[in-house]
Amino acid sequence: MSGFETLSEQACFGGVQGFYRHDSVVCGGPMRFAVYQPPQAVQGRRPVLYYLAGLTCTEETATIKAGAQRLAAQYGMVLVMPDTSPRDTGIDGATGDWEFGEGAGFYVDATQAPYAARFRMYSYVVEELPALVARHFPVDPTHSSVFGHSMGGHGALTIALRHPDRYRSVSAFAPIVAPSQVPWGLKALPRYLGEDRAAWADYDACELVARQTFPGTILIDQGEADKFLEGQLKPELFDQACAEAGQALLLRRHPGYDHSYWFISTFVEDHMRHHAQALGLA
Amino acid sequence: MSGFETLSEQACFGGVQGFYRHDSVVCGGPMRFAVYQPPQAVQGRRPVLYYLAGLTCTEETATIKAGAQRLAAQYGMVLVMPDTSPRDTGIDGATGDWEFGEGAGFYVDATQAPYAARFRMYSYVVEELPALVARHFPVDPTHSSVFGHSMGGHGALTIALRHPDRYRSVSAFAPIVAPSQVPWGLKALPRYLGEDRAAWADYDACELVARQTFPGTILIDQGEADKFLEGQLKPELFDQACAEAGQALLLRRHPGYDHSYWFISTFVEDHMRHHAQALGLA
Repeated sequence: MSGFETLSEQACFGGVQGFYRHDSVVCGGPMRFAVYQPPQAVQGRRPVLYYLAGLTCTEETATIKAGAQRLAAQYGMVLVMPDTSPRDTGIDGATGDWEFGEGAGFYVDATQAPYAARFRMYSYVVEELPALVARHFPVDPTHSSVFGHSMGGHGALTIALRHPDRYRSVSAFAPIVAPSQVPWGLKALPRYLGEDRAAWADYDACELVARQTFPGTILIDQGEADKFLEGQLKPELFDQACAEAGQALLLRRHPGYDHSYWFISTFVEDHMRHHAQALGLA
Repeated sequence: MSGFETLSEQACFGGVQGFYRHDSVVCGGPMRFAVYQPPQAVQGRRPVLYYLAGLTCTEETATIKAGAQRLAAQYGMVLVMPDTSPRDTGIDGATGDWEFGEGAGFYVDATQAPYAARFRMYSYVVEELPALVARHFPVDPTHSSVFGHSMGGHGALTIALRHPDRYRSVSAFAPIVAPSQVPWGLKALPRYLGEDRAAWADYDACELVARQTFPGTILIDQGEADKFLEGQLKPELFDQACAEAGQALLLRRHPGYDHSYWFISTFVEDHMRHHAQALGLA
């Protein structure tokens, strides 16, 4: 059923960096993802941290650019980095626009034709991928955490807020926190979910935190030289929503940093420590 | 004369990661390179470490994949990462072969037509680039070191052995140490330098170390799962040449590691410490 295939495995920080492909039932086609297994994984199951990437990215982006393996090896944590959408869907309108469709799955389960058949990244990341990972890798699914960048920060926040029982911690770099209110979301959500804004609320961190807080502090880093800060990211909206909901939030603003992986690599150590502490590793 | 241009500058580990282009006199055309300036550079000139990349690589490869900026920021060291050859040379035979020509400059000054007009990476890396860097960046040229990978490890070793007065330390990941004896060298050196093997000796670390040792220990890391180990790299030849010459060498062999940047990123911290110590930073 899973059609699981190892594309490559290479030694890295005493562990193994691998790339894999499988046939996704949820997304109706092949999906790729990356897994880093720390050296401690040869002795038994380890806590697992999921990283969700942003618009235009793939399973390779953070794997190559974030520099998280060093810290995963130090803490003894498995890292899982999925692609950001199904690929080669052949669906009209699903390619050619970096803000929608392939490379821009927005971690939602699409309900609208023609996207509903393939664009189901929410269920993929929350259900199918963790089950697959638990079958093929030495992870302890009872110790899972999630983080992400930009669209993937939106994914991490929404998934953790909807499943506070499944994730021990959540953090984000420059996340989209209010997709119902910003151009990226206003473009993608109607096409994936329809015009009824009530359906969007399940995928909007600002709306979700008002319903259900997350135990423990949410960590968010934001660069102040990020060109998407004012138009698309608006962390002040989540800051306010958390304050109103009583959600503990550590929102750090960093002068001079932009939206890139130079920013992420600079602060990834703090995020890894945040998750290691919640996962009982630090 | 230098036609110096900033392509991008981005905040990274408290410093600045930049990409630059200039008109190279030595290589007869535009050249690109990357520079990382650590946070300490705003206070004054800092030691500088050159990284020379391998076949097929550009100024972006190690910059994105090696993870050296974190350590350069920690030690207060400027990193300079040039491209591996001139580009868009229009020279017949200089493209289409990953082992020769563009992307494969081998850090030699070609003497043979038609390559001699453009392929002069030795003088570029030893003379022109350091002078340019000293004009445009806060570096202390009296504190310079060099390292590299594969073809770039060959470059680092040969350049340091020929200029022990200019470089405080040298190290390499999986270097080509005896190009006169292996297929990569036997293909490239005659085309760049002619058939007279005497001319090749100036670019062969095993030959050079017999003439002139380097003060201090040379550090080399080599993965034992490197597919080029037996056919192209042959570190045992350099081990023997160093032993015969009285050259201090720390050659470490790592089971399971291949030729990739997963290998480099794993051990880059040790190399950065090696150079930081020689540069008076650790």
